Amino acid sequence: MAVTVRGRHRAFGGQVQYLAHASAEIGGEMRFAVYMPPAAERGPVPALFYLAGLTCTEETVIIKAGALRRAAEAGIALVAPDTSPRDRRFPGDDAAWDFGQGAGFYVDATAEPWRDAYRMYSYVTRELPELVAQEFPVDGARLGVFGHSMGGHGALVAGLRNPDRFRSVSAFAPIAAPMHCPWGEKAFGNYLGPDRAGWAAYDATALVSAGSRVASGILVDQGLDDQFLATQLHPDRFEAACRQAGQKLTLRRHAGYDHGYFFISTFIDDHIDHHAAVLGR
Amino acid sequence: MAVTVRGRHRAFGGQVQYLAHASAEIGGEMRFAVYMPPAAERGPVPALFYLAGLTCTEETVIIKAGALRRAAEAGIALVAPDTSPRDRRFPGDDAAWDFGQGAGFYVDATAEPWRDAYRMYSYVTRELPELVAQEFPVDGARLGVFGHSMGGHGALVAGLRNPDRFRSVSAFAPIAAPMHCPWGEKAFGNYLGPDRAGWAAYDATALVSAGSRVASGILVDQGLDDQFLATQLHPDRFEAACRQAGQKLTLRRHAGYDHGYFFISTFIDDHIDHHAAVLGR
Repeated sequence: MAVTVRGRHRAFGGQVQYLAHASAEIGGEMRFAVYMPPAAERGPVPALFYLAGLTCTEETVIIKAGALRRAAEAGIALVAPDTSPRDRRFPGDDAAWDFGQGAGFYVDATAEPWRDAYRMYSYVTRELPELVAQEFPVDGARLGVFGHSMGGHGALVAGLRNPDRFRSVSAFAPIAAPMHCPWGEKAFGNYLGPDRAGWAAYDATALVSAGSRVASGILVDQGLDDQFLATQLHPDRFEAACRQAGQKLTLRRHAGYDHGYFFISTFIDDHIDHHAAVLGR
Repeated sequence: MAVTVRGRHRAFGGQVQYLAHASAEIGGEMRFAVYMPPAAERGPVPALFYLAGLTCTEETVIIKAGALRRAAEAGIALVAPDTSPRDRRFPGDDAAWDFGQGAGFYVDATAEPWRDAYRMYSYVTRELPELVAQEFPVDGARLGVFGHSMGGHGALVAGLRNPDRFRSVSAFAPIAAPMHCPWGEKAFGNYLGPDRAGWAAYDATALVSAGSRVASGILVDQGLDDQFLATQLHPDRFEAACRQAGQKLTLRRHAGYDHGYFFISTFIDDHIDHHAAVLGR
């Protein structure tokens, strides 16, 4: 699989690369970013996949999260995919910022017209990890996943359903019970169709209740001035499900913080440390 | 002077604010950003003014530099003005990215039609520091200045000409001898007119040679893969002038780094530490 380098930038002794490749899952070009820490010059390193939120791209976490310094120190690669197919277009896919372009919701669509292209779940849990382990000095047996908002949802689902692929899991302000919020109902109702039985495989709260587990425990940070907390995120539902099911969860609530990257950047070092403790150096 | 708050975001225990005010120097609205560290809740803190480069705004350093964590730890406020007047428009001021909008070059224009609005030198060295010391818990006797590229030029000039106002000075990839590069010749030739005698007051190399000094020493970082190094920046000229004049300078050259914010973010902690050592806590 050929990977095209769109840009390279030295950072913290390592290197940011903006990349593109022809994705088999998506049926078109997909873009992603990789940060390789200095330790990668000496051998394979663990990698931490970051799934971004609505409207974001592969550049967002690399530019705005202030994550590279700690990733360099911890000797962990960062991998950041784009948030939806971009190459293939569908009617109305740029009509709203919470659906279509920039809003793949990390599901494999089953409904027309999205089913052949909107396969972000398989893309981020299978195709991209395999590509990265093949093309970069990354140890494919030491992968973690985290994300923000829609990508926090994606990280929780990817981690709960793929414990052998992703050994460490965390999230910032995740959409923690998407079957029960407007963003999730809109996305799932279109990408997956009206039958809610098919939605549960993409709902972190439902997955925990049905028995999925992250053995290393889950770290979640949530700002209490988050403008989407009351209507879209439902960390309380996820917390209750984890407590009832015996899933280890560290849910930290932070007074005064909102939904944006200033919140993320404040706590990103803790997340990288959480993953480094599981994945090793 | 009334300051309008356009946005507030909690970050690293402190607060980012995006602000606007009616500037007397500029004769129109100017935007700036302030990061107040947690220490500001207990009393006045030092402040570090960041002057951004071509095409940037007051948001750039706040979002892209990863500076807030160390500013919070050091107990230093960050102040970031926009890079030009925006409110008042002039013929052709958006025709090129290196002149006009986003390219004020931190001079007080003397030529028409810019002379009444393009007064960024007085704005960043006088009006804005006085406004900030008045409106925020900032100790106006403990101010530093730094910047990048065009803003590195601005920081060196502001510091060299105002040792009583700015006690610490540093720069990333500054335009260090603007009288001798295309960017500087274009900007000065227009804003200041064709008489080069008037340009020397805005050329850091010329200022050092003419006797201006920064008593605390100057820190400059320069990437050696910087795409503008050969044609626009001339750190060698500045270094030679400092050596000849006895101006203490720490000029660090970094293999592999380019002109962008990944370079800045890699070394920004060192800059904040440099200023903190001079300004105290």
